[in-house]
Amino acid sequence: MKKLYKGNIIFTKEMQSFEEHKNSYIVVNDGVVEGIFQTLPEEYKNLEVTDFGNSMIIPGFNDLHVHAPQWLNMGIGYSEELLPWLEKYTFPLESAFADADFARVNYQRFIDDMVNCGTTRACIFATRHLEATQILIDLLKEKGIGAYVGKVNMDRNSSAALQEDTQDSINETLILAKQDMEYARLAAENGKAPLVRYILTPRFVPSTTPELMKALSEIAHEYDLPVQSHLDENKSEIAWVKELHPECESFTAVYKDYGLIMPNKTIMAHCVHNNDAEIKILKDEGVFVAHCPQSNMNLTSGIMPLRRYLDLGINVGLGSDVSGGHTVNMAAHITETINSSKAYHSFFPEYEPLSTSEAFYIATKGSGSFFGKVGSFEVGYDFDALVIDDTDLLYGQSYETLQERLEKYIYTGTPNNIKHRYVRGNEISNNFSK
Amino acid sequence: MKKLYKGNIIFTKEMQSFEEHKNSYIVVNDGVVEGIFQTLPEEYKNLEVTDFGNSMIIPGFNDLHVHAPQWLNMGIGYSEELLPWLEKYTFPLESAFADADFARVNYQRFIDDMVNCGTTRACIFATRHLEATQILIDLLKEKGIGAYVGKVNMDRNSSAALQEDTQDSINETLILAKQDMEYARLAAENGKAPLVRYILTPRFVPSTTPELMKALSEIAHEYDLPVQSHLDENKSEIAWVKELHPECESFTAVYKDYGLIMPNKTIMAHCVHNNDAEIKILKDEGVFVAHCPQSNMNLTSGIMPLRRYLDLGINVGLGSDVSGGHTVNMAAHITETINSSKAYHSFFPEYEPLSTSEAFYIATKGSGSFFGKVGSFEVGYDFDALVIDDTDLLYGQSYETLQERLEKYIYTGTPNNIKHRYVRGNEISNNFSK
Repeated sequence: MKKLYKGNIIFTKEMQSFEEHKNSYIVVNDGVVEGIFQTLPEEYKNLEVTDFGNSMIIPGFNDLHVHAPQWLNMGIGYSEELLPWLEKYTFPLESAFADADFARVNYQRFIDDMVNCGTTRACIFATRHLEATQILIDLLKEKGIGAYVGKVNMDRNSSAALQEDTQDSINETLILAKQDMEYARLAAENGKAPLVRYILTPRFVPSTTPELMKALSEIAHEYDLPVQSHLDENKSEIAWVKELHPECESFTAVYKDYGLIMPNKTIMAHCVHNNDAEIKILKDEGVFVAHCPQSNMNLTSGIMPLRRYLDLGINVGLGSDVSGGHTVNMAAHITETINSSKAYHSFFPEYEPLSTSEAFYIATKGSGSFFGKVGSFEVGYDFDALVIDDTDLLYGQSYETLQERLEKYIYTGTPNNIKHRYVRGNEISNNFSK
Repeated sequence: MKKLYKGNIIFTKEMQSFEEHKNSYIVVNDGVVEGIFQTLPEEYKNLEVTDFGNSMIIPGFNDLHVHAPQWLNMGIGYSEELLPWLEKYTFPLESAFADADFARVNYQRFIDDMVNCGTTRACIFATRHLEATQILIDLLKEKGIGAYVGKVNMDRNSSAALQEDTQDSINETLILAKQDMEYARLAAENGKAPLVRYILTPRFVPSTTPELMKALSEIAHEYDLPVQSHLDENKSEIAWVKELHPECESFTAVYKDYGLIMPNKTIMAHCVHNNDAEIKILKDEGVFVAHCPQSNMNLTSGIMPLRRYLDLGINVGLGSDVSGGHTVNMAAHITETINSSKAYHSFFPEYEPLSTSEAFYIATKGSGSFFGKVGSFEVGYDFDALVIDDTDLLYGQSYETLQERLEKYIYTGTPNNIKHRYVRGNEISNNFSK
C-alpha cells in the first residue's frame, strides 16, 4: 500500500552534508521509501496526501546502546566512576527486575519515554532475568518500534543477587534464541521482517567466565545471532580485564579469542581507550562502535577518538547509554557528540570536530545501518520518520536552510515538537506523560 | 514583615558539601533569611506557614554572563568559532535592536524564559543601543528579578550597523550612569537596595578604542560602577588583541592598563587561555570569572582550567553566555560545568573533576556573591529561592538524601518542576509559554 507525505524533508545520505527537500513529497510503499519529489509525478496523483505543512520530516533516531532497567537511575551517582557506580547504583536497581510486575511498569515507562523523544530503533540491554526480558520484548512488539533486546549474561564478579549460575545462563539464552527464531519464522510467513529481535548480551568480560563466553559463542554461531557488549570504557576496567585474561593480548582480543565477535553484527559500546591493534580488530570485523559521549563524561571515562574512527571507516552509531547517560533523548546525544569532539580537538587539534551533519548521520543512518536499510530516506529505506513542528522555536524568524531549523530543534527543541512518529511506515502512538 | 516557609531545604554554604534541612522552616524577614529551624522556636509560632510539603527549597540560580539580544539565536551557528560567529550571526541580530519595538518583544521573551528556568539574578549584555537598553532595564524592574545590565560599548572593528562613534558611546554611557545613580538614590530613600543596576560593558578589547577605554575608566571611577567584559576566550581573539596592543603585556593587562578592572567589582567572561601573569591579576584584583562551559564547547573555544582557579581562591560564577550557550537554563550549565571539568581531568589527571555541590555552589553563591549576600540561605542572605516539586521525576523511588533528589532534578528535571520563584522574598510571576 502506497502513502504520500508532504513537508520539509531533511536527512543525511552522506555524513558530509544534509540532503534538503523543501516542500516536497515522499512516497512510501509498504513502509519503504519509494522516492522524494519536488513535483509529484503523474503516477502518484491519485494518492491522498498527508500534508505536514511547514513541519520538517526527519529520520527517526536510533539508539545503539541503552540499558532499559537503569532508566529509573538517570541523573543519579555521577560522582562515581564505572566500577563503583555499578556496585553502588546499577546492580541494586537491576536486581529489582526479578519482580515481573516491577519490570513491566518500568519497562513500559522506558519505552514510552524513548518513543516520546523520537527514538524509533534501539539496541537494548535488559537484566539477567529471563521473565523480565521476555516482558520487555513483548512490550516493544506491542509498541511497534524496532529493537534488538538482550538478556544480560553475567556469571562472575557480580552482586549476590544478580550473579547467574553458568548453566542457567546458557539455558535461558537458548530459550530466548529459540523464541526469536520462531518469531522470525512466523514473520517471514507473513512476508515481513521482524522488528524486535534477540541479541546475545554478555555484560562485559569481567562478568562472564571463559566457560560462558565459549558457550555463548557456540549459540551465536548456531543461531546466527548478533552480539552486543562493552569495551574499553574505563581504565580501571581495562586493568581488571588484563588481570583476568593474561592469555589474551587485549580487552578486544578477549572477545575475539572467545568467538564473541560476529563479523558485521557486533556492537561494542564505548571504545574510549582502544589501542591500535584493538582498533584494527574493530575495523577488520566490521564491529559497530556505540559512541556514548554523555555517559563517558558523566562517569569520567574519557573521550572516544571519534574522528579517528571515522577516518578509518569504522562503523559508528550513537548510544544514550542510560543510565550512564541521563536522558534517552538522542537530540541531546547529538550535541554531546559534537561537543565531545570539540573537547578532543582542543587537546588534539589534528582531529577536526564533527559537524552537525556528521553527528546527525551517526544518530540516524550510523546506528540505523545495524538494523538494515534504516536511518535515511534514500529509496529502499524503511520509512522511520519524525514530523517536527518547530513553529514555537522560531519566534517568527525565518531561516534560509532546513539545516538551521534542524540545528535549532536539536539544540533548543523538546519532545513536544515531535508531532508524529513512524516506524517502517506505521505511526507509533505516544503515551508518555510526566 | 516576617514570613515562614516549610519544606526540604538544601543549599551550599561551602563548596565542598550540601547543607540539608529536611522538613524544616525558613524564616524570612523583609526578604532576608533570619534562620532555618527543624523545630519552630516559640517566637515564630504565630506566623502563618506556607507549607511546600515534600518539595525542595533551593537558592535561585544566578547567571553571571548572558547576552539578552542573542536569545533568538540560541542553537544557531556552532560550526563557527568566535570571530566569524560574531560577524555572521551575532552582529546582524544585534543590529535589529535599533528598533525599540523589536527590542521590547524579544527582551520580554528573554526575561520570561530566564524566570521560567529559575534564574533570579543575571549580569546582562544588551546591545550598543541606548533606547533598547533602557527598555531592557525597565522590563527587568517590572519583572522583579535582580540584574546588572550594560549597554555595550563598541567603537571599532564592528559591523557598519553596530559600530559607535566614540563620543556618542561616551555620552550614552553617561546618561545610563546618571539614571542608575538616581534610581539608587530613590531606592535608598525608601530604605531599599536597588535590584536592577547599570554595569559598564565594553564589548571586548578588539571592539573598543584606547580613547573609549580611557573614557569608560574615568566614568567607572567617577560613578563607582562595576565592569563586565570578555577575556581570553579564543586563540584567534587573543592573537588579535596582541596585534592591536603591542604596548600591553597580555589581554588581561590591556584592561588593567586602561583602568577597566575595578577591584572586586569586575566580571570577565570565559578566561579559557589566561597565562600565569594574567591569572595573578584576576586573583589580586578580585575579578569574578564567569565560567561559560557550554559556550566554550559550542564555539570550540577550549576548556577553562576551573579547578586551578578554585584552588587559587579566584571568584568564579557561572554564565549561560546565550547565545554562545544554547539555553538560559542554569541547571544545564551546572551539568556542563561538571562534565567540562571531567573532560579536563581526562587530559590533566592532577586536576580533580568538580562535585555536584561545587558546581551548584558556583551557579548560586559563586555568581550570587557579585550581587551581595545572594545565593545561599545563611542568615542575612536575600531570600532568592525556587520551590522544586520533583514528584514526577521520582516515580515513587525514595532517596536517602536531598542531594540525590537535587541531582535528579538538575540532570533530568525541567522548568515545569519549578513551582515558585522568589527574589528577595517577593514571589515572581511566571509568564513563559512556548
